[in-house]
Amino acid sequence: MHQTPAPFTAPEYDRRLSLTRAAMTEQGLDVLFVEDPSNMAWLTGYDGWSFYVHQGVIVTHDREPVWWGRNIDTNGARRTAWLSEDSLRPYDDQYVQSTTRHPMQHLAALLKEMGFENARVGVEMENYYFSAKAYVTLLAELPGAQILDATALVNWQRAVKSPEEIVFMRKAARIAEKMVDGAIERTRPGLRKNELVAEIYRDALTGVGDDWGDYPALVPMCPSGADSSAPHLTWDGNALAAQQCTFFELAGVYRRYHVPFCRTVYLGTPPDDMKRAEAALVEGLEAGLEAARAGNRAADIANALAGPLERAGIERGARCGYSIGLSYPPDWGERTISLRSEDETVLRPGMTFHFMPGLWAPNWGLEITESLLITEDGPAETFCDRPRQMFVKP
Amino acid sequence: MHQTPAPFTAPEYDRRLSLTRAAMTEQGLDVLFVEDPSNMAWLTGYDGWSFYVHQGVIVTHDREPVWWGRNIDTNGARRTAWLSEDSLRPYDDQYVQSTTRHPMQHLAALLKEMGFENARVGVEMENYYFSAKAYVTLLAELPGAQILDATALVNWQRAVKSPEEIVFMRKAARIAEKMVDGAIERTRPGLRKNELVAEIYRDALTGVGDDWGDYPALVPMCPSGADSSAPHLTWDGNALAAQQCTFFELAGVYRRYHVPFCRTVYLGTPPDDMKRAEAALVEGLEAGLEAARAGNRAADIANALAGPLERAGIERGARCGYSIGLSYPPDWGERTISLRSEDETVLRPGMTFHFMPGLWAPNWGLEITESLLITEDGPAETFCDRPRQMFVKP
Repeated sequence: MHQTPAPFTAPEYDRRLSLTRAAMTEQGLDVLFVEDPSNMAWLTGYDGWSFYVHQGVIVTHDREPVWWGRNIDTNGARRTAWLSEDSLRPYDDQYVQSTTRHPMQHLAALLKEMGFENARVGVEMENYYFSAKAYVTLLAELPGAQILDATALVNWQRAVKSPEEIVFMRKAARIAEKMVDGAIERTRPGLRKNELVAEIYRDALTGVGDDWGDYPALVPMCPSGADSSAPHLTWDGNALAAQQCTFFELAGVYRRYHVPFCRTVYLGTPPDDMKRAEAALVEGLEAGLEAARAGNRAADIANALAGPLERAGIERGARCGYSIGLSYPPDWGERTISLRSEDETVLRPGMTFHFMPGLWAPNWGLEITESLLITEDGPAETFCDRPRQMFVKP
Repeated sequence: MHQTPAPFTAPEYDRRLSLTRAAMTEQGLDVLFVEDPSNMAWLTGYDGWSFYVHQGVIVTHDREPVWWGRNIDTNGARRTAWLSEDSLRPYDDQYVQSTTRHPMQHLAALLKEMGFENARVGVEMENYYFSAKAYVTLLAELPGAQILDATALVNWQRAVKSPEEIVFMRKAARIAEKMVDGAIERTRPGLRKNELVAEIYRDALTGVGDDWGDYPALVPMCPSGADSSAPHLTWDGNALAAQQCTFFELAGVYRRYHVPFCRTVYLGTPPDDMKRAEAALVEGLEAGLEAARAGNRAADIANALAGPLERAGIERGARCGYSIGLSYPPDWGERTISLRSEDETVLRPGMTFHFMPGLWAPNWGLEITESLLITEDGPAETFCDRPRQMFVKP
């Protein structure tokens, strides 16, 4: 048997569907087509690495959601989603990566069959998996329908986590701590980077106790020295060297729920500018956590961070965090709330963020971050519990 | 220092650019915007996990390609691409996942500045990373331009591999063999699946000798028992059990070049229908490899496979393979040539395919596959050299 089909309770899925339908009503949508694999999984439990072909979930107001996907993935839907057999609607393999047919032709026919030929149809216009071609094909195939932008409609419903989801994220946090502990401990001059990453994967996947580790939506990022000036370089086969920093941008993952957690190791004696940056960053993180309270805005966290950084002469253009939870590649953020001065979203209990004010100087990168939970009252709770510092090793 | 910036020689990149420009001329394009990270890397060497935000390469007829991306990723471009400083054109972080701004507004302004306000602009309409919203934004921002579908224009230039690329794929093949050997050896009743996958990652990343392993564009897939009826389920924490099959869908990866390689292990005594399927599949694979000759068509491989399978009463709807090479998540195929009866593409020396006729029955899955190289004459060469069979263990 596969791990329980769909990892959450029926009331939890009901809650999600109700929230989604309410948002559909607010936008005047008759039907919503969800291609984002994170939204598909959040609504139905569907879990598989099949998002490299077109697939999706069709949400209506009056019936169970419909899983639509490639024929050979129907068994995967049977084994992971809570949907009944007549809610699985596969398309034939001839539509896959064809130059003459497009899966959206099949989807359009299905939407017509379901009575949505002239409906108000929501689609995720800004999403990795709903391509430009998918959009123009759907437009052509459903000339009587209104195809409307419902980007992140479901993502926004995911922002406040339920108690069941928080349980998953706490498990992910234990895995994240284990990964960071292992990375810090193993970092030493002479160790090849690819071998270090192999150990990080081992910690990630073996997990903690019965809680096995799932794959992260981004691979481990841990560039060293001047490479660490570039936040998104992946590994190579070079050996770690003395007098270099290495930052570890990692996430523990439990059943697709991510808790990112970053720390930096310096082998040798860090330069003064890096130590000054560390002090300002830690002060800024603490100020941000204090500001991360229900009723405050996302911007308040960013602004609290900015004070100590500015006093240290550090200008940081990039946003300093984002909403987190369930995710599939290529991003572990939820792509809704950003921690930045222009984001006025009011913080609510159960919201979860990666507070991620990475600093990338020309010759080093410094990442000390926290994943946090907005609580009923008081400052945010951090998911992980490790010293908030740069780790210096000889 | 990061591993050599851009892994190939200058003449190799010249070759790629010339092929791309010739295809642009054939389609009457003044400029091509490439968002597919595989195409970006193939043209410029750029390598980073930054494709979760909009980025791309602008190819023109008369100047060096331009890397365009998020500001914080510019250092990554400096360190991995062969481009000169004035060919790096970043956009500000305020465009990232914003609800009020879109990066395509910045790209449109750049294209205007480059003189393409009224040009014929090619874009990759069917691609994971060029969203529907990106398309409509570009349309609105460049009303005088013609935005034309150049899906897979670059992908098709990648189909025939150069000798330099074949060297990379042979390295990837050694890593793939090591991964499959390790998986077969370790498979035993009682071992938790996530722990087995941790070992597979270790083999993948440690690589072979100096050839360090890169991350695969798909995570390892290795479902067991009835789960193996679903080709794209990922792992869980359950223990392997006796009287079950497990297939391993893996790829060795050397600097983004993939050689996929699949084998199946049965713990115990395989059922008769599975053994019959194995025999037919191996016969079909061998017939397909014989047919995989320069001058034949992609369809000939699929048709050669179909004979033995049909004689065994096995109907297989899905395509049986695809072009492979350089890739980024979420797919390790090149999304051009498919091995299926309707694909008339003529095979040429240097083309590389994953010949992948997976069989998924209600209670088992059987994957025995080969990655192959079309040679000057004679049947295809397989990249890996391991017994073409199901492995039965007690």
